[in-house]
Amino acid sequence: MRFEGMEVGFDIPALPGMDAADVVTPCLIVDLDALERNIRKLGDYVRENGMRLRVHGKMHKSVDVAKLQIEIGGARGVCCQKVSEAEAFARGGIPDILVSNEVRNPVMIDRLAALPKLGPSVSVCVDELANVVELSAAAERHGTELGVLVEVDCGGGRCGVETPGAAVEIARAVVDAGGLRFEGVQAYQGAMQHLETWEARREKLEAAIAITRGVVDALTAAGLPPDVVTGGGTGSYPFETQSGLYTELQCGSYAFMDADYGRIRGANGERIDAGEWENALFVLSAVMSHVKPHQAVVDAGLKVMTFESGLPLVFGRDDVSYRGASDEHGVVDDPGGVLKVGDRLRLVPGHCDPTCNLHDWYVGLRGGKVECVWPVSARGKAW
Amino acid sequence: MRFEGMEVGFDIPALPGMDAADVVTPCLIVDLDALERNIRKLGDYVRENGMRLRVHGKMHKSVDVAKLQIEIGGARGVCCQKVSEAEAFARGGIPDILVSNEVRNPVMIDRLAALPKLGPSVSVCVDELANVVELSAAAERHGTELGVLVEVDCGGGRCGVETPGAAVEIARAVVDAGGLRFEGVQAYQGAMQHLETWEARREKLEAAIAITRGVVDALTAAGLPPDVVTGGGTGSYPFETQSGLYTELQCGSYAFMDADYGRIRGANGERIDAGEWENALFVLSAVMSHVKPHQAVVDAGLKVMTFESGLPLVFGRDDVSYRGASDEHGVVDDPGGVLKVGDRLRLVPGHCDPTCNLHDWYVGLRGGKVECVWPVSARGKAW
Repeated sequence: MRFEGMEVGFDIPALPGMDAADVVTPCLIVDLDALERNIRKLGDYVRENGMRLRVHGKMHKSVDVAKLQIEIGGARGVCCQKVSEAEAFARGGIPDILVSNEVRNPVMIDRLAALPKLGPSVSVCVDELANVVELSAAAERHGTELGVLVEVDCGGGRCGVETPGAAVEIARAVVDAGGLRFEGVQAYQGAMQHLETWEARREKLEAAIAITRGVVDALTAAGLPPDVVTGGGTGSYPFETQSGLYTELQCGSYAFMDADYGRIRGANGERIDAGEWENALFVLSAVMSHVKPHQAVVDAGLKVMTFESGLPLVFGRDDVSYRGASDEHGVVDDPGGVLKVGDRLRLVPGHCDPTCNLHDWYVGLRGGKVECVWPVSARGKAW
Repeated sequence: MRFEGMEVGFDIPALPGMDAADVVTPCLIVDLDALERNIRKLGDYVRENGMRLRVHGKMHKSVDVAKLQIEIGGARGVCCQKVSEAEAFARGGIPDILVSNEVRNPVMIDRLAALPKLGPSVSVCVDELANVVELSAAAERHGTELGVLVEVDCGGGRCGVETPGAAVEIARAVVDAGGLRFEGVQAYQGAMQHLETWEARREKLEAAIAITRGVVDALTAAGLPPDVVTGGGTGSYPFETQSGLYTELQCGSYAFMDADYGRIRGANGERIDAGEWENALFVLSAVMSHVKPHQAVVDAGLKVMTFESGLPLVFGRDDVSYRGASDEHGVVDDPGGVLKVGDRLRLVPGHCDPTCNLHDWYVGLRGGKVECVWPVSARGKAW
């Protein structure tokens, strides 16, 4: 255990070169080998299937992970959900950024329109006609160009136009507006990604594809054929790929995985964390109290993981299990009394995206050593 | 809506002096009048009842709120749950800090022992004998003194000694160890704070007080009478106060309130957010899409609130309600179709502590203007 460099106020849980055993807990750790295998695997898939890949940066919120996905994983750029996230990626040098969401706050529309001046190609989604006027005025004010995709509600029940006619009306307004470039259609069905069985997901995706096809056909008939039809997540990307309709995938969670995604099943009934994707992200936690013989208390609770998608799994162990959380504590069942104070557990968080949003740093491990410490570049960037 | 000062990369949602209507959403806002009334009210209570107040800083994680609680609210200092939180409060000038939790990581024990050199009185909890040796060695290494409280499990089922004998053994070791000062007993029953009825909470607290009394009696009989018996939260403080046993309260949520605490009932059956404490903390959110006639989508989801204690309430309105969240969106039922894009809602988060931990800034409002922007000083400080 080294103390030098880790004095009062050093708010980073590790230093490069440190033994993995000396990393301060709790913190987020990344198994770099597993991460790279996941990233290369999806890169191979999109190449073999002639798709484009725009990874979802809102999952990891990290410029460093996004760069790895571009360099070794076939990604053309990122999507994200907020202008402030897009700013973090733009400042980090990511060349192609889609805000896969509507932007309606005037300050943030202005900042979105300014962003191409930093270098990247920038696009955004629209689901109401009035937004076209707002975006066009801002882009013209800054002398920039924004790509625009019409968002279609293909079953998620959240944002997005509900009719092909509304999509055509918006696309035509975009084509006629200054400072905007009509790119195509955003159709992401988020609500089905975590349905457990392959068949249940396939059914939802077929409905989504049918809705999206109706919009694409209407746009084409109106002389506005979309260059881009984008969507698809870790729970659905084979369906979008096979559709013959989508041109681009937006997978995010495949790179890190989490406990909730791990539970879903592939085409042959196998868990997707049992072969398709590896767990590369963990909350590293340590036992901090073990007064009761069959219960350990660990240092990882609500402050370092979110629980809206369920409890974390204890990676690689079936002798202990995480039973419940309070803000700074986790209660771990230890029926055999095998744990002792200081013992470390790798927890697979229930839901990776909001868990990453709690942390400032990823500690990258390889071969028992800390290889890198990456900032969570877009953490907390909510507007 | 002002743009100047709010350009690309300005990652603060407001500027002092700005109209409240121009604050960028989503963000945390604080009603400063309500906050000050809550703080003064508990200050009056502890003074009238001869108790000491050590506010729980882990709730707000803010040096500025802690200072207000000391200046106008009768607090002697703060407690918090992590050494890195204690560092943030020490560096902010808070004079008296208790880490109301066990510290077992060697690096963080070292940093805890170094902290008195920054000025404050620093104390910590212990529930296993081996920890006394670790703390003593670190304090002697730094030439400092740490206060020590024996933590008692008084019903929470988490950390803490389970027998009076174990408490006496630890207290005696503390008295005999260099660099440590025996202060007393930590007995906080967290598991009961949110039970809805006064009677249910009273029953749990009576059991907690009986356990704690057994420990205090054993320490006194062993010639180690505790100066401090500390505990009590927003859901229980009248019981600890009336016990004649506790000397100090550790309330936190009273200052801000939240939806989950708001649901609990006082002695006369009234909700505690209906008179006892005011809602002072809100997630300010705006409508970002309203394609469907009876559903609005707002810009506040899992990235700005946590949901393990339930959904947020829409403050001051009964015509719309928050139905569900995804990472960056909230779906709001709008049966009358009264909302339009850009409309703002004040959301009372389900659970204030982990919600504050998602944000970097509190925007303090008074009289329709931004009066201050405070950092969430100890946000993310998890070790």
